[in-house]
Amino acid sequence: MVNDKKKFDLYLANAEIVTPHERYKGDVGVRNEKIVAILPSGTEVTAEKTLDLTGKCLLPGIWHTHCHFRDPGQTHKENFETGSRAAAAGGITMAIDMTNNTPPPAEPETFLAKKESAESKSYIDFGLYGAGLHPEQVQNLAKLGAIGIKVFNTRHPMDAYPYIPSLAVTDHGILYEIYEEVAKTGLVCAVHHDDSDWTRTLVQRDYIQKGKVSAEDYIEAYDRGYMYGHGMVSGLASSLYLAKIAGVRLYVLHVGVMPEMAYDYIQFAKSKGQTVYSELEACSFLIDRAMVEKIKTRTYLFAHNVDRAYEYLKYDTDTLVLEHAPHTLEEITNGLTNNFNAPLGVIGVQEFLPLMLNEVNKGNISLERLLYLTTESPARIFGQYPQKGAIAIGSDADFTVVDMNQEKILTDKEELSKSGWTAFDGVKVKGVPTHTIVRGTVVYENGEVKGKAGYGQMVKGTAYQP
Amino acid sequence: MVNDKKKFDLYLANAEIVTPHERYKGDVGVRNEKIVAILPSGTEVTAEKTLDLTGKCLLPGIWHTHCHFRDPGQTHKENFETGSRAAAAGGITMAIDMTNNTPPPAEPETFLAKKESAESKSYIDFGLYGAGLHPEQVQNLAKLGAIGIKVFNTRHPMDAYPYIPSLAVTDHGILYEIYEEVAKTGLVCAVHHDDSDWTRTLVQRDYIQKGKVSAEDYIEAYDRGYMYGHGMVSGLASSLYLAKIAGVRLYVLHVGVMPEMAYDYIQFAKSKGQTVYSELEACSFLIDRAMVEKIKTRTYLFAHNVDRAYEYLKYDTDTLVLEHAPHTLEEITNGLTNNFNAPLGVIGVQEFLPLMLNEVNKGNISLERLLYLTTESPARIFGQYPQKGAIAIGSDADFTVVDMNQEKILTDKEELSKSGWTAFDGVKVKGVPTHTIVRGTVVYENGEVKGKAGYGQMVKGTAYQP
Amino acid sequence: MVNDKKKFDLYLANAEIVTPHERYKGDVGVRNEKIVAILPSGTEVTAEKTLDLTGKCLLPGIWHTHCHFRDPGQTHKENFETGSRAAAAGGITMAIDMTNNTPPPAEPETFLAKKESAESKSYIDFGLYGAGLHPEQVQNLAKLGAIGIKVFNTRHPMDAYPYIPSLAVTDHGILYEIYEEVAKTGLVCAVHHDDSDWTRTLVQRDYIQKGKVSAEDYIEAYDRGYMYGHGMVSGLASSLYLAKIAGVRLYVLHVGVMPEMAYDYIQFAKSKGQTVYSELEACSFLIDRAMVEKIKTRTYLFAHNVDRAYEYLKYDTDTLVLEHAPHTLEEITNGLTNNFNAPLGVIGVQEFLPLMLNEVNKGNISLERLLYLTTESPARIFGQYPQKGAIAIGSDADFTVVDMNQEKILTDKEELSKSGWTAFDGVKVKGVPTHTIVRGTVVYENGEVKGKAGYGQMVKGTAYQP
Amino acid sequence: MVNDKKKFDLYLANAEIVTPHERYKGDVGVRNEKIVAILPSGTEVTAEKTLDLTGKCLLPGIWHTHCHFRDPGQTHKENFETGSRAAAAGGITMAIDMTNNTPPPAEPETFLAKKESAESKSYIDFGLYGAGLHPEQVQNLAKLGAIGIKVFNTRHPMDAYPYIPSLAVTDHGILYEIYEEVAKTGLVCAVHHDDSDWTRTLVQRDYIQKGKVSAEDYIEAYDRGYMYGHGMVSGLASSLYLAKIAGVRLYVLHVGVMPEMAYDYIQFAKSKGQTVYSELEACSFLIDRAMVEKIKTRTYLFAHNVDRAYEYLKYDTDTLVLEHAPHTLEEITNGLTNNFNAPLGVIGVQEFLPLMLNEVNKGNISLERLLYLTTESPARIFGQYPQKGAIAIGSDADFTVVDMNQEKILTDKEELSKSGWTAFDGVKVKGVPTHTIVRGTVVYENGEVKGKAGYGQMVKGTAYQP
Repeated sequence: MVNDKKKFDLYLANAEIVTPHERYKGDVGVRNEKIVAILPSGTEVTAEKTLDLTGKCLLPGIWHTHCHFRDPGQTHKENFETGSRAAAAGGITMAIDMTNNTPPPAEPETFLAKKESAESKSYIDFGLYGAGLHPEQVQNLAKLGAIGIKVFNTRHPMDAYPYIPSLAVTDHGILYEIYEEVAKTGLVCAVHHDDSDWTRTLVQRDYIQKGKVSAEDYIEAYDRGYMYGHGMVSGLASSLYLAKIAGVRLYVLHVGVMPEMAYDYIQFAKSKGQTVYSELEACSFLIDRAMVEKIKTRTYLFAHNVDRAYEYLKYDTDTLVLEHAPHTLEEITNGLTNNFNAPLGVIGVQEFLPLMLNEVNKGNISLERLLYLTTESPARIFGQYPQKGAIAIGSDADFTVVDMNQEKILTDKEELSKSGWTAFDGVKVKGVPTHTIVRGTVVYENGEVKGKAGYGQMVKGTAYQP
Repeated sequence: MVNDKKKFDLYLANAEIVTPHERYKGDVGVRNEKIVAILPSGTEVTAEKTLDLTGKCLLPGIWHTHCHFRDPGQTHKENFETGSRAAAAGGITMAIDMTNNTPPPAEPETFLAKKESAESKSYIDFGLYGAGLHPEQVQNLAKLGAIGIKVFNTRHPMDAYPYIPSLAVTDHGILYEIYEEVAKTGLVCAVHHDDSDWTRTLVQRDYIQKGKVSAEDYIEAYDRGYMYGHGMVSGLASSLYLAKIAGVRLYVLHVGVMPEMAYDYIQFAKSKGQTVYSELEACSFLIDRAMVEKIKTRTYLFAHNVDRAYEYLKYDTDTLVLEHAPHTLEEITNGLTNNFNAPLGVIGVQEFLPLMLNEVNKGNISLERLLYLTTESPARIFGQYPQKGAIAIGSDADFTVVDMNQEKILTDKEELSKSGWTAFDGVKVKGVPTHTIVRGTVVYENGEVKGKAGYGQMVKGTAYQP
Repeated sequence: MVNDKKKFDLYLANAEIVTPHERYKGDVGVRNEKIVAILPSGTEVTAEKTLDLTGKCLLPGIWHTHCHFRDPGQTHKENFETGSRAAAAGGITMAIDMTNNTPPPAEPETFLAKKESAESKSYIDFGLYGAGLHPEQVQNLAKLGAIGIKVFNTRHPMDAYPYIPSLAVTDHGILYEIYEEVAKTGLVCAVHHDDSDWTRTLVQRDYIQKGKVSAEDYIEAYDRGYMYGHGMVSGLASSLYLAKIAGVRLYVLHVGVMPEMAYDYIQFAKSKGQTVYSELEACSFLIDRAMVEKIKTRTYLFAHNVDRAYEYLKYDTDTLVLEHAPHTLEEITNGLTNNFNAPLGVIGVQEFLPLMLNEVNKGNISLERLLYLTTESPARIFGQYPQKGAIAIGSDADFTVVDMNQEKILTDKEELSKSGWTAFDGVKVKGVPTHTIVRGTVVYENGEVKGKAGYGQMVKGTAYQP
Repeated sequence: MVNDKKKFDLYLANAEIVTPHERYKGDVGVRNEKIVAILPSGTEVTAEKTLDLTGKCLLPGIWHTHCHFRDPGQTHKENFETGSRAAAAGGITMAIDMTNNTPPPAEPETFLAKKESAESKSYIDFGLYGAGLHPEQVQNLAKLGAIGIKVFNTRHPMDAYPYIPSLAVTDHGILYEIYEEVAKTGLVCAVHHDDSDWTRTLVQRDYIQKGKVSAEDYIEAYDRGYMYGHGMVSGLASSLYLAKIAGVRLYVLHVGVMPEMAYDYIQFAKSKGQTVYSELEACSFLIDRAMVEKIKTRTYLFAHNVDRAYEYLKYDTDTLVLEHAPHTLEEITNGLTNNFNAPLGVIGVQEFLPLMLNEVNKGNISLERLLYLTTESPARIFGQYPQKGAIAIGSDADFTVVDMNQEKILTDKEELSKSGWTAFDGVKVKGVPTHTIVRGTVVYENGEVKGKAGYGQMVKGTAYQP
């Protein structure tokens, strides 16, 4: 008999618990936002709230590490409230937000302002990248709790949004000094790589200056390795070396967007003992050429080689995302006539988990591997393990509950992002999140967002704890 | 409040729980031999028995997969009772016993008789290899619960015990047919490899026929790759290929005993996609040349290359043992004058864990990696995960409790093996097991074996569950 | 002006000279069996004999390193005169003869007798393998001039000819002692590998004992890796290691016959720094499954994977042959009803070069690479470079002249082997040898063998000269 | 009898002929600048001139592919006459000259002017790189005979000579367009790589702005990977990828100067099937840290890792040079006080071959491998084989004769470069060139330059002929 006088705040009963390493029947008791009991199914307990999860899988809370909640600056298309609500509805308990805001969180003042604003709006927990722009600010941002430092090592060929020219760090001297400073903090440095000289020259020469700017032209340019193409690999190739000599933990963004040699360069670096992580974009296998010709400007990227991307997913990548980079329907519609000048993105935070559970059901990835890539692995990389990313006594009571057998059609109509559309409108999936639980509070349940804006907390970055 | 009317049978309080993947403060409640609750430290509960494990680490129960308990047949040096008692005292909750008995468990009758005898004597749970000798008996032994099939693909140059000539399978046609049959069962086939032609020819020619048979000669012969030497690698090289084409899961015994190229052959096979496991002998790094010259016949093996063995331990091997192969002091003393005719072995089941905890304290391996090699990994390989090898609701309540800071000197005097001595007499270690708990019963506690002979159960082998 | 008072014995004018490294227009002057001048085309000289080779390629004399001239013992199907005559007609200047004779050249007496007989009959130069059977005879055979030591590490499942049971060395102790002795001589040890236990067991069990013995059954058995199959790879795997520790230069015969992993094992050994050579069988890409179903018992081997074999040909193998292993038409016809009891072989010495020149014309291999594999490389491996295998001042005046544009249909009718047939009857090739010149003597010219039996000399083996 | 009415122009008698593949005794006859006869030693001939080379080795003419003859523009330190005379005295028959002239050969007019000037001054044959600066000029330079296109992908941190700022191509868009254009010509693109942003930032920050500019500071900066350091590897990493997608044959200059990972990047690229060549600087093993502390500003580079450089020399590099980059003694003496502002270089064309023959005698490289790297391999890469780089009928009669046993001390005094000093002043070598023969004319013999300025011809670049 457990002489536990205090009720549980929340009791999760009768689920199949699945972690990256184990799968067993059991219940979980929560008190004061923490996991305080793991018990056999059917244990009788007293709790403020009990969820009977019969037939469902109870997972560690899922992370989404690549969100653009557009706040502050572009709140006409998204803000921290709408973005985090969409995330909650998508089974996400922890989001990491990017830095291309206006103003960008590149100095203490702007970082703090963003933090306060986000804390007042978010439904789920979150981390904020500090904007890597001024080497001398890196340590300040780290002290304020940046989850990592994000660098835009790119400048758009037409300086088009969302690539804010003022955030571009294309000078390798400055890039390296940022690496040196981030190395001292122990955080990761997350980089969108590019070789802007190359990209601008080629895209301008062969597309823009020739007036080839339609959505179809864009697709061709992407396919040939022009847009988000060879320039990114060229930049990556140098950056890997600079990161190695700086001793910084490099976190490579947009893997799967870049042409295939990017995989090889990262594996080469790893084979030489470098600490480097890759964040794979799920579009690299979810959106093929045929689909992109249908959805056109609803994405900016698609698969170069689906088979290779699946291999990389199964054996090599360190984390996985379906990038969340929203724009309004009007903005992307402009892209049909000039897609090089239109904002480019994809909307994914709400659809990410259902689409990936569907991949599990199709046999393309095991549920355990998916969980590793979206819970334990990011939690380790960003220094939060085992506070987050684990089902263990004392860990934060972050859970995602899923019904692996429920089917559903994804639609624009149900999209909670302020942008109001999704690249996967009309796509049928098997496997959906039914509950999103953040530190013991159910913020989403069966189609309904129940949490409150402002509940979510900022998670402070720490050095990797191996 | 947990309205759990039933008391816990056992409650493990205030420990630091460590698994291959996690480390957190917590308590574990046990009922009916299973883990039924994982709770925060300090939870007040009612239990038949509570252990306050403050300052200690609570680990999944440690496996030892290479025991020779000599029963039936050579019970003057060990039997299942004395052997399993020594194991319990060494923090081992699960042992796998070898097959060179008289009679060997190569047919249903002898396997069953051994099983019944062992069940009446064992302090801890155990698996029994079926003796791989007759291809047509493999499936029968599997049906009776063999944990795997062990093959002696070797014949001793002097047909000396413990290498029972009647167990030798040196004909590759028969070896392959055994592989084919084991493949059908899904069990592993564990093999002591050799190229007996090579070994006999060279050892006879350069040692025995020249009268070079002393312990010093033996050490020289081992060092030159004669005894347990190149012949084993030659045999392994062929066997890996035969196992590949038979589709059997090959479990390579005595890795670390064989000359270094054995590591390379196994890695080559893995790189070609073959399912092959290696069991590393801890003597490959614990006993160096200097030590063997001191302890002489108290071991039959020592390190070829300590650095390579450590590398292999950290990054490559699948399981780890300190082989337990006891003989009487009188028998090994005979080896001083003729070490090729004397029984060869090492006594390790009681010393294995303390020695390895000492390695953890020395920084040679992380505790998590050690646990992976001795809990989750063998449990997966032998098809028992997560029934065993995990701390999770519903898993067997097998635990090893250790005090990482306690120091101790290993001695012959405390050796519980019937043989009564150890290769590590006089060695000081830091890190000792304080409790051994098998299915919720404390069978060893702080220097005292408390279990009962006959408590241990045989675990039936099953195909790998990935 | 060259004041050379002595005429050339032979002057080769107006050819394109091609070597593994160079290609240029030039003439070659020969005196006393040696190359004594390389001059520009058109130089006016005095010579006993001048050949105008306009439009032809002058190559270093081509080697064929895998001939069974069946003499002594089975001279009803071939003898050194007929075999070497066929070789001469095929553009071969240097042949190496195998050891499965009756009696075999395993002792000084039989080796010497074979040498004398061969010297009295051969049209071309040749090397004789000593039969590796008795370790203590290896050095004696080396002193008598054996070009290398050949070991039959195999025993045929039915002890059928041409696998003379008395030549079988299946005991790895003896095999290793042979390696030790060959290592001392510096010669290569050429091995037909097998794991005879495996092969006998499987072939007997699944074919012979089931009465499945027809040519079709044989083809199936080969295709499944039974005949000349997995057993060879298993044997190779061990042998590579034994050779490594013995320090012998291992020359692996029948590469391309063995299942594909044989390539990988050899490459693995090379990657670990071992000196090992592979002799690729051209049937591994010349005879596909469709062809073997047509020609049936006219070969014993065919391609496992044509693409892989071509890759291996281009980048990996050390030498190349079309094995010459003749039998009478009557003997192979018996194979149609029992192909496991019939002698197995392929007839190739006369067809080898035309078939390979055809491959050059088809673009499957460069002429330079073909020449490397059939001149410089074997000459280096067998210790004859640059006496043979080069076009250089002082080298033996061995040449093969080819017309790369001439077309021809290979036929049984033109076969000069005593056996009188070829697997390639009816095959059309582009590229044929027009002259075979051995030490300055034209032994074959445009369809006519002009040499004399007994002209050929035995070349004594020497250690590799790197 | 050779009824050759015409005398040889030159007859090279009694040498040991050594090529990358062969070694034999023989004589060579030359007429009309070509090799027209290769004959046995001792053949009696009539010749305008006969050299008795008893005891010497006759080699294909040695190439030096990295010369700065400083003409036009900096002729106070070297010009084509003095530079090519020093080369002749060093056994070099063919030199390739770099482009950092004033004006640089980046347009047809300046290229032609340089060509004409060089043809009027050179003692030996030569190739001229076109300066890769304007993509649209690449094809024009190719048509005029550029041996390849050289790009300075670097800008010196202080814009110091010899890195003419106007030649810097640091924009990757322009670099890539140059690659595209060179790919069309089939020539190689030879690149001095850098990541100028990185280099400038770090060198300025940690050295120049701190006033750490002495020769000692420079040595420290080089050793830490600042000068000619990590920036070069970073630039190489990107460039390899850009070259791959452009399909250009990239020729990487200054290998061995760059930190070690440069070797790995090149090997990685080769392993992925890219056509890329590396030119190893011999200073990477000839000048160690101890030596540089003695000679200080007489070099700008020294070994990072002598062992790795030797490995790379033996197994990996494609060509080999001892860079010839002369400055006046006064100029380099200035470097003692400010070595970042002084011209940096090393003087090597005359010392290269003796130093390398010395390495042959020390056993650090075989003569054959050295010849491959300095004759056949560059001749193939730059499209001149077998016109140059071979001893074969019809090839240019370019020879270097060496006495492998002659010893000599290298001195400033004997230096023929206009600069008048050498980094190797006082170094004793064994192995010296005794004759340099260009197209049949002896331009250097036993200490005396005999050729005439203006004899040398420009060799036009052509696409690689595999």
